[in-house]
Amino acid sequence: MNERKPAVTFEDIRDLARHLPGPDLEAGTAARLRERELTKPPGALGKLEEIAFWMACWQAKHPPELRHPRVAVFAGNHGVAAARPVSAFPVEVTTQMIANFQAGGAAVNQLCRIADSDLRVYEMDLDNPTRDFTTGPAMTEEECARAIAYGMMAVESGLHLICLGEMGIGNTTSGAALCTALFGGSATDWVGPGTGVDTDGVAQKAAAVEEAIAVNRAALEDPLQMLRCLGGVELAAIVGAVMAARMARTPVLLDGFTCTAAAAVLHALDPKALDHCLVAHVSAEPGHRRLLDRLGRDAILDLGMRLGEASGAALAINIVKAAVACHADMATFADAGVSGRAS
Amino acid sequence: MNERKPAVTFEDIRDLARHLPGPDLEAGTAARLRERELTKPPGALGKLEEIAFWMACWQAKHPPELRHPRVAVFAGNHGVAAARPVSAFPVEVTTQMIANFQAGGAAVNQLCRIADSDLRVYEMDLDNPTRDFTTGPAMTEEECARAIAYGMMAVESGLHLICLGEMGIGNTTSGAALCTALFGGSATDWVGPGTGVDTDGVAQKAAAVEEAIAVNRAALEDPLQMLRCLGGVELAAIVGAVMAARMARTPVLLDGFTCTAAAAVLHALDPKALDHCLVAHVSAEPGHRRLLDRLGRDAILDLGMRLGEASGAALAINIVKAAVACHADMATFADAGVSGRAS
Repeated sequence: MNERKPAVTFEDIRDLARHLPGPDLEAGTAARLRERELTKPPGALGKLEEIAFWMACWQAKHPPELRHPRVAVFAGNHGVAAARPVSAFPVEVTTQMIANFQAGGAAVNQLCRIADSDLRVYEMDLDNPTRDFTTGPAMTEEECARAIAYGMMAVESGLHLICLGEMGIGNTTSGAALCTALFGGSATDWVGPGTGVDTDGVAQKAAAVEEAIAVNRAALEDPLQMLRCLGGVELAAIVGAVMAARMARTPVLLDGFTCTAAAAVLHALDPKALDHCLVAHVSAEPGHRRLLDRLGRDAILDLGMRLGEASGAALAINIVKAAVACHADMATFADAGVSGRAS
Repeated sequence: MNERKPAVTFEDIRDLARHLPGPDLEAGTAARLRERELTKPPGALGKLEEIAFWMACWQAKHPPELRHPRVAVFAGNHGVAAARPVSAFPVEVTTQMIANFQAGGAAVNQLCRIADSDLRVYEMDLDNPTRDFTTGPAMTEEECARAIAYGMMAVESGLHLICLGEMGIGNTTSGAALCTALFGGSATDWVGPGTGVDTDGVAQKAAAVEEAIAVNRAALEDPLQMLRCLGGVELAAIVGAVMAARMARTPVLLDGFTCTAAAAVLHALDPKALDHCLVAHVSAEPGHRRLLDRLGRDAILDLGMRLGEASGAALAINIVKAAVACHADMATFADAGVSGRAS
């Protein structure tokens, strides 16, 4: 039989996760030194100062730059969404929203325009959804590895920041299943209204998650297997993009619940694997705040958004731009002839 | 005696505060109707949807626009800052920072650039500080009214949004005194580190506030008298700018503690007087969160900033732009051929 070897295997990915580069402490130190010379009281720009430091560390460059941000939206379809009533919207909306992205009509298009950001939408074989994970694994190992490798390709060289997000009817259920497997707790801890299902719909989502965990239990032996059994191709692509961004010295903004759930797979492999990522916003989807607690993370924005499609991450680009601009372009006390603190 | 009548009197200002125009409910209704047709689940853009509605109501226009934002920074000097150790920086920093604003070296310059905003800095007779309010009223009624009228002039026609902020060494002490007079509590409830004074400095600020309240007690008979006795010219200018913006149908973003303390004078005159204002961020200055609680307000951003100079308000412009862009430019379900919610 003529069997093609996949480009990337789970073993490759585990190996990569063990060899991720760390922060550039020289660039970070240069950022700290410059920060204290700028014409403001120390610490007065709050998180903007931390963001500028983080950008320097993970771009491995001082001063950090942000002229070329990219927003990457991965779209996939989920077998569970056709089989069970887990979304307020029909499955065909995934494909319809791709057309809306291409025509410039979605929220993320407007948000990218305001942020002067490149937008790429990655349509991942929407006519072939993952298998219904309440009856068995969503993907084979090869399918999952291929989706991870696909996500890696979104990180081209020369990007100063990449925002990751997703589109896929049914994927908050997939994210909730992944969180239940990764962090434990009951399915009801992790499911929520998603696109806007009612109480009964939330109960249907919890039931789907419980069945998915039960039917796949024997296979859920490590984080990548959890991703394979319970995730979707767009979640796997996010895992790949996060890793590739680390290798490419491109800081990452994570979007909401589903995106962060995907990234949590890497955190489970290595708690430092997300150090080059910031969480752009905390979603109104209730599982997101719980997930951020488990990851020990704060978000930049808290605006009650719950749209996905990288919208929260795109919205945060201008905050990062502001941090970089203040850091790089403010005058120092010496430059401006401003008196320092009274003794 | 040849006495010149001031352009605006306290009586004029009280009268104006009683006749502020309300929201345009027709524009607001049009915003609500459009919102539910846009290609996203209802409510999925969270506060961005509320901001778009608010912009329509207070611009009295649907769809709202945000091509011409302005950042207005009022700068004044405080007698108390020369007399008492209430700031980590010497008084001359107010003037030095004006030069820094003019040269483009301050944080707010970078933040305006990122937001593509006009910046105006209003230098208010810095060589003539207000009187030390621990020994008597900071201003005469005429001086205070003139500063209010000056602030009104910052609101030109054609602005789509105005961000208000201040610069003035010693002015968090003035803001704390104003809050103590307006809302009660002890001085220690309202003072904080400001530019970065230590525990002893905070105690010095509290003592100055207590003395200011005690020495001026007989005169603190209404909110405008509190502003006159305890405020500064830049705080009075903010009061004027907030009122003029209401008349000009220009929505307002308020900056941090001192700016919001000034605006609270109007809230005390009429609880609806700030309905056309949003608080851009919650400052790390501890009195700000307490003040927002008293005003019943949330802030858009919470980034631990405490710089003043309208920096938090300038940073929030792009959030408002994003809200307006999503509202005005997203496709509707009908436009995009996207299926609505499953029944």
